Amino acid sequence: MRMYDIIQKKRDGKELTTEEINFFINGYTEGRIPDYQASALLMAIYLKKMNKRETVDLTSAVVNSGETVDLSLIKGIKVDKHSTGGVGDKTTLALGPMVAACGLPFAKMSGRGLGHTGGTLDKLEAIKGLRTELSKEEFISIVNRVKLCICSQTANITPADKKLYALRDVTATVDNISLIASSVMSKKIASGSNSIVLDVKVGSGAFMKDLESAFVLAKEMVDIGNSVGRDTVAIISDMDEPLGYAIGNSLEVIEAIETLKGNGPEDFVELCLTLGARLLLLGKKASSIEEGRKMLVEVINNGEAYNKLLEFVEAQGGDTDYIKNTELLPKASHIIELVSHNDGYIKSIDAEEVGKCALALGAGRETKESDIDLAAGIILNKKVDDRVEKGDVVAYLHCNDKSKAENVAIMLRNAIKIGDKNPIHKKLIYGIVDNKETIKF
Amino acid sequence: MRMYDIIQKKRDGKELTTEEINFFINGYTEGRIPDYQASALLMAIYLKKMNKRETVDLTSAVVNSGETVDLSLIKGIKVDKHSTGGVGDKTTLALGPMVAACGLPFAKMSGRGLGHTGGTLDKLEAIKGLRTELSKEEFISIVNRVKLCICSQTANITPADKKLYALRDVTATVDNISLIASSVMSKKIASGSNSIVLDVKVGSGAFMKDLESAFVLAKEMVDIGNSVGRDTVAIISDMDEPLGYAIGNSLEVIEAIETLKGNGPEDFVELCLTLGARLLLLGKKASSIEEGRKMLVEVINNGEAYNKLLEFVEAQGGDTDYIKNTELLPKASHIIELVSHNDGYIKSIDAEEVGKCALALGAGRETKESDIDLAAGIILNKKVDDRVEKGDVVAYLHCNDKSKAENVAIMLRNAIKIGDKNPIHKKLIYGIVDNKETIKF
Repeated sequence: MRMYDIIQKKRDGKELTTEEINFFINGYTEGRIPDYQASALLMAIYLKKMNKRETVDLTSAVVNSGETVDLSLIKGIKVDKHSTGGVGDKTTLALGPMVAACGLPFAKMSGRGLGHTGGTLDKLEAIKGLRTELSKEEFISIVNRVKLCICSQTANITPADKKLYALRDVTATVDNISLIASSVMSKKIASGSNSIVLDVKVGSGAFMKDLESAFVLAKEMVDIGNSVGRDTVAIISDMDEPLGYAIGNSLEVIEAIETLKGNGPEDFVELCLTLGARLLLLGKKASSIEEGRKMLVEVINNGEAYNKLLEFVEAQGGDTDYIKNTELLPKASHIIELVSHNDGYIKSIDAEEVGKCALALGAGRETKESDIDLAAGIILNKKVDDRVEKGDVVAYLHCNDKSKAENVAIMLRNAIKIGDKNPIHKKLIYGIVDNKETIKF
Repeated sequence: MRMYDIIQKKRDGKELTTEEINFFINGYTEGRIPDYQASALLMAIYLKKMNKRETVDLTSAVVNSGETVDLSLIKGIKVDKHSTGGVGDKTTLALGPMVAACGLPFAKMSGRGLGHTGGTLDKLEAIKGLRTELSKEEFISIVNRVKLCICSQTANITPADKKLYALRDVTATVDNISLIASSVMSKKIASGSNSIVLDVKVGSGAFMKDLESAFVLAKEMVDIGNSVGRDTVAIISDMDEPLGYAIGNSLEVIEAIETLKGNGPEDFVELCLTLGARLLLLGKKASSIEEGRKMLVEVINNGEAYNKLLEFVEAQGGDTDYIKNTELLPKASHIIELVSHNDGYIKSIDAEEVGKCALALGAGRETKESDIDLAAGIILNKKVDDRVEKGDVVAYLHCNDKSKAENVAIMLRNAIKIGDKNPIHKKLIYGIVDNKETIKF
């Protein structure tokens, strides 16, 4: 078998065999196939596409390129959740304790943030002492004991994906549905959970800007998961405006804690209940979505979800005082009010722009090497469809470097449109894709 | 400017600007742009195509990537001829002396053969002492004195083309019309001639297998040449059967010598007259095609073309005794007859297969490093449309290694189809493309 022939075949729009895909992934991972042949194939795949069978085979080959996590030592059905990334997306921080409090093991390997969307690991590091670099043994032991563990992806999982992603990133071959779906799912599959709930974000702050491509991506990922024997469901949720009110690491941790105490923002709570109910159903802890939602509401109301958070923080070496008293979390030295110049209604809040504002204040990474200011970020005071009067505070800018705030305030004002009431009320959940059907709301 | 954005633009089917093409070629030649980005762009170009303007810009950028030959020290209009490559194509060996004998300077940089088509330089090396590695000064001085010089391409011409071609060769991005046309024309333009006659081969033994793509390639190359101020004309000629009777280095030199003495094969003489008349017209030595043909016939009949060959061989250090007495040229130790098993007519002689037979006998290079057996090759005894009787010799295999001959004889027999008379007589010239029109015969 020759890489040349594989490139030529895909270039001519033909279907690659399982053997050809394995030959490519193994050869590339082991360095026998050079980058310049891999990038030519990736561009051919980008332009000529892959079918479902090829995408599943690519995913399996990437999973097999490295170690896989064996979670069989954890009793019961292990669930995982993955978001395609959004602004203000602190879902894991609240959802994990909620489903774990319902008795479902939530074993999650997470990533760091890059660009305008934040990463769960960065947020957790606002809690003093909390460790996310865990050995496999620690990971399994914590999930068994606490039912909840969130750690960084171990270095030897899906090495082919790391190499391919770095190459796609510099050859304009990132945003191809099959390649995105395969990249996400390979990591999820290698991480060992039995069931996966995907939160596919759509809108200005998401990778997928339109509903149609979000549904296509969701279907592709669900198909891959189910093809390799993982119960996989995708929720398509809004990322046109940021999720909740808080954007920034410490600020999002506080919002997650408040949510577990029953004081969460309406949209964020609804997303957690939607995703959580699916997880409980897949994990056979609930027999219906309705029962799952009731269970989740109950563990919030009776304090069990909040207690699970404390238990989890302690298990991973974190100081629970930081949860009990959030004043201890990193705090910005300046809080600047952004005040409305008009009367009216919030028509839109451009999530991507708000994400970039938080990034500019120091909340995110411009490059992989950047340091994060855990305290920096934005608290929205209004959400889409809210009424505002002239002089009302629309948002608060939290920053340690006041010199950055002036430009950011202008950016943020442009990101928030005020005007007449929107004719149609905003939507949070656009649909669900499972192995049987696609439902659009 | 970023290479990423250039890849993305072409990936999305957009037109690249002159600046973007220059940025790519300069950056790639100088090693600032890595192979993996270049190959991604080449695949995007392959699949999304380039328009005429982009192709001309790419060609100019490649020309400017290295030295260009200044032929201004040679008096008069300098002409060059290029064949896209065929089996038994010894045209330069006869055509050069013919047009030079008519007083037109013929300054040619040539290449070596690879695969089933032979290179002019290899053929010239059958003549003892003949040097093709010449300095620029020698080259110019010989053209001025003899009106004819054939040398190897100097190392510092179109370095971008060498690098790009090597990359295309391993990434399945060779056979794209724009990239082929640009590669050929960049070398011709950098070689400095004012006028270029292209011999675009079509058929089983050629790069272009069908007439339509041969005409498209011809038009693309003619457009490039004329866009940069070189009078360029393309002839589309047959390569379904080999040209002439001889295939193999020494054997082709002998056939070229015989042609200059007036004993050439009908098809080969006709091709030389067609190409030569165009060259004389472009070089303003003839005022019409008819006049050009007459001049060429005359220099053959009066011996001036043959004498020009002797003069040229001597000027480049070759032993003219090898021309006067071709028995001195490398000779094969074995000549094996291939005899017809049937009565009938020659229906077809697959040029590519015959080329592969010659290659298998040692006449060509399997890889760049292979040695050539200058004596090896094939002499056809029959051509398409000829009558054959059972027992007639169809071809002679010349070889030094008799063990190779048996398999080659079987291959060669399969390449030569004998049967009923073809309903339509074969054609040699299919058309002409110049800067004004495309004429199909």
